[in-house]
Amino acid sequence: MSAAATQQESGYSAASRGEDALSTLAALVREDLEACNRLIVERMQSPVSLIPQLAAHIVAAGGKRLRPLLTLAAARMCGYRGKRHVNLAACVEFIHTATLLHDDVVDESALRRGQASANALFGNKASVLVGDFLFARAFQMMVADGSLEVLRILSEAAATIAEGEVLQLITQNDTATTEAQYLEVIEGKTAALFAAATEVGAVVADRPAEEQAALRAYGHNLGIAFQLVDDALDYSAEQEKLGKTVGDDFREGKITLPVLLAFARGSEAERGFWRRTLEAREQRESDLAEAQALMRRHRAIADSVARARDYGERALEALTLFAETHEKRALAEIVRFCVDRAR
Amino acid sequence: MSAAATQQESGYSAASRGEDALSTLAALVREDLEACNRLIVERMQSPVSLIPQLAAHIVAAGGKRLRPLLTLAAARMCGYRGKRHVNLAACVEFIHTATLLHDDVVDESALRRGQASANALFGNKASVLVGDFLFARAFQMMVADGSLEVLRILSEAAATIAEGEVLQLITQNDTATTEAQYLEVIEGKTAALFAAATEVGAVVADRPAEEQAALRAYGHNLGIAFQLVDDALDYSAEQEKLGKTVGDDFREGKITLPVLLAFARGSEAERGFWRRTLEAREQRESDLAEAQALMRRHRAIADSVARARDYGERALEALTLFAETHEKRALAEIVRFCVDRAR
Repeated sequence: MSAAATQQESGYSAASRGEDALSTLAALVREDLEACNRLIVERMQSPVSLIPQLAAHIVAAGGKRLRPLLTLAAARMCGYRGKRHVNLAACVEFIHTATLLHDDVVDESALRRGQASANALFGNKASVLVGDFLFARAFQMMVADGSLEVLRILSEAAATIAEGEVLQLITQNDTATTEAQYLEVIEGKTAALFAAATEVGAVVADRPAEEQAALRAYGHNLGIAFQLVDDALDYSAEQEKLGKTVGDDFREGKITLPVLLAFARGSEAERGFWRRTLEAREQRESDLAEAQALMRRHRAIADSVARARDYGERALEALTLFAETHEKRALAEIVRFCVDRAR
Repeated sequence: MSAAATQQESGYSAASRGEDALSTLAALVREDLEACNRLIVERMQSPVSLIPQLAAHIVAAGGKRLRPLLTLAAARMCGYRGKRHVNLAACVEFIHTATLLHDDVVDESALRRGQASANALFGNKASVLVGDFLFARAFQMMVADGSLEVLRILSEAAATIAEGEVLQLITQNDTATTEAQYLEVIEGKTAALFAAATEVGAVVADRPAEEQAALRAYGHNLGIAFQLVDDALDYSAEQEKLGKTVGDDFREGKITLPVLLAFARGSEAERGFWRRTLEAREQRESDLAEAQALMRRHRAIADSVARARDYGERALEALTLFAETHEKRALAEIVRFCVDRAR
């Protein structure tokens, strides 16, 4: 059975399972998460009212809070009992939000988290500048925290994110992109912040370098799995469930693993199709369906998801270092949630 | 004689004097500045080649390096003998460059430092992302420096810059903007980084709080004077000398002090002119000349420059705390350079 067909038949229950994993994690750190949400609202305030107004649109739009949840749970799994992780989880979410705002400018995406994107409502200018504000505010909050190690980790992540996004821009519309380049893109744009989010959990808990590295590896591999699935879903998910427009990547000519696999395995005529639609960006009404059919024919979605599962396994392996706790089990469940979204 | 006429008659010699002040300052910290320039080129490198390529376009385009020069000279005036200030001066320039790149997206300005703007050449996407990279890189470099006080000062400046830019966006095309709001805009978008650039000079030299505050006041007031003159020049300078398009602010409907003064002092018919051109943005070929004529009639340029001179005086006063050195004299000359540009 094709991956897309599988997704359509068992999608609902898989989504429920996924949301269960996320709910379990959220319930486990409920007080921390509530404190984090309060802090987010508090620290996005500014006398310049457009800033909280626009930030609220995206920060408070009911995002999954996946990244801050990772920071909160990682710190607790490491036995941390203080409050610093709440502040750092908010920093992680601000950095994530800033990249979303800047990504909206970049991608002209019409939907984000199921709502009109901030830049469609407020304009490109405001999105760029409010992103800058949130980014700067995150650094102010890290300075208040006072750990140079945390600042090192998150400033490096921020630089790597930007590099990944620029590389994505360069490889866009280029079917000669290699899998290695694609991997570099998603390591930058997604895995870098996941890795930083979990690593700082070990830092606030003052755990040894080995555990810090393990939590970083967990986040890194989880992030890659997450993005691989996201890229698969762009061709296979039902629009309503995804909360974003299916086929966005296709319309923008983004080169993702499903495309690379279908291209590599395709006939010369099929490669012509990909070059026309993604490089020349000459797209007709029926082309998305044709792209999906080619992916089914070459198992491009199923194999992308299988790749995600491999990275998921590595994320789980990284957790073996830690004692069995509720937090560890919840972090393991999150890996399954990320991979199962694609089923 | 009107300010605009004065400017046209004595503009050349004033510009020469100004460049002398800048050259004097640059000569005084020549080795530091060269080291700073090398560091800038070194640290804007990335395996993602579009980043140094685009950054070079703006960083290496022969900007005045005014902000890093301020950091270098302030540190030396404070008796600092190490090398940390070189690194921090590069951070200041990176933050400045990031805001220019994001400002280019925002303002669609056709010329920047006399060259085609980065976003005209490379596109909005790349400008936003490379700006993000330089911003993140600046924070990485501050982390390597290791002073939380420096990180506090520059992250606060970054947040204030974003607030100022957003406020500018809100007040754009609104002739009901107050002088207080205008001042808040330029304090944010310009004075905040000038203040931070000079303040960190005292911090690396480990000077007492009083001197740190004095250097901050110097930079703050210099920054306001600088921006007031910039806003006056947009209506009065010769295009060649300014290195940017005269009338940019007018065409974009930016509300600057010359506009606010001409509007407040104008007849009802004149206010209609400002509302049509700046609020409704219905502009005809002859409107810029008309705007300049109204400003001459109401001494709007001359009085804006006089206001700049007042802030310049405050900047000079802030220097009285320091012993007479070559650096102090050069920093005082820079105040005159900033104000004299408008003559």
